[in-house]
Amino acid sequence: MKLLDGGRAPNPRRVRIFLAEKGIEVPVETIDIGRKEHYSDAFLRLNPMRRLPVLVLDDGTPICETMAICRYFEALQPEPSLFGRDAREIATIEMWNRRMELDLLLLVASVFRHSHPAMAELEVPQIGALAEASRGRVPAILKWLDTELRERDFIAGEDFSVADITGLVAIDFMKPARLEVPEELAALRAWHERVKARPSAAA
Amino acid sequence: MKLLDGGRAPNPRRVRIFLAEKGIEVPVETIDIGRKEHYSDAFLRLNPMRRLPVLVLDDGTPICETMAICRYFEALQPEPSLFGRDAREIATIEMWNRRMELDLLLLVASVFRHSHPAMAELEVPQIGALAEASRGRVPAILKWLDTELRERDFIAGEDFSVADITGLVAIDFMKPARLEVPEELAALRAWHERVKARPSAAA
Repeated sequence: MKLLDGGRAPNPRRVRIFLAEKGIEVPVETIDIGRKEHYSDAFLRLNPMRRLPVLVLDDGTPICETMAICRYFEALQPEPSLFGRDAREIATIEMWNRRMELDLLLLVASVFRHSHPAMAELEVPQIGALAEASRGRVPAILKWLDTELRERDFIAGEDFSVADITGLVAIDFMKPARLEVPEELAALRAWHERVKARPSAAA
Repeated sequence: MKLLDGGRAPNPRRVRIFLAEKGIEVPVETIDIGRKEHYSDAFLRLNPMRRLPVLVLDDGTPICETMAICRYFEALQPEPSLFGRDAREIATIEMWNRRMELDLLLLVASVFRHSHPAMAELEVPQIGALAEASRGRVPAILKWLDTELRERDFIAGEDFSVADITGLVAIDFMKPARLEVPEELAALRAWHERVKARPSAAA
């Protein structure tokens, strides 16, 4: 198999961190988004949605979507568990991973895509009012997350999980979106330092 | 345990269809969204995101997020499998469920929330340009889905899965969003009839 990777974008990074946490190595082929290699016919046959990363299995089957790729590896190699082991853990991690994705990462992405000059050519139309509405929702989400993280070490409980990976990537993606975590959110900042210090964060 | 249900909205319906396919009965308590019961303090303690449905476990723990609730029941009662059994099936179903959710259901929801007069009070600000941009993306997604469904009976393969539930709810949600499946997309229309005819669709 091989992993078609897209470099610095948030979703490719989520998969790389996931694999690093699992200690799994997969041959990687980098698709140059800047040169629009993900618009090529060859790539469109693998993923008509033009998104990265894509895992190509040995028989040529493409597995698209970040979370689908992560779940593929979780099923192949369950330990260390990143999606949970029993019904309650599985549900709690899924709840928090979705919140980190739908309520934080997608919000930050919406600010970035609809306001950053570098995205003007890819996000058509850029909708300034959407960027501003999304930007206005970020502080309340961060404050809530800070309150939650006063109670425990990681986002979904006492153990590191895929929800921390999504959370880390979302918080780091705030920088190019020109958003900041306020100084006073100490628990959120401490969590960020904690997950950023793991070797996987460099992946 | 009990399920806090939100009536006719797409996410509560996804969980009800899922439970019907599994043959699982759970006591239900209806939260009246029209009367803003999901803004009450008691509800906010269960889900600060103010979203339905919420599964409340016997010890009072809330499980929020539709897919987290579905995965909870899949773990408790694996058969009939709706999320897949082996790594390849799990990844393929997750890929398609996410496409149905992120690329279709959220798109239709974006049209509805940002254009329907009934949403003016809840979606602040309503962004007309976003509704129009989302509306403009729907035809290509439907056409692609039609092409895929010429090859197989269900969205993620030969068996019914959670991806079909998300797809069904998304297509049905097109009506209040004032969107239509074009007549010529025969494979998509045939699939829609097929899943709509299952007893679970009435849930």
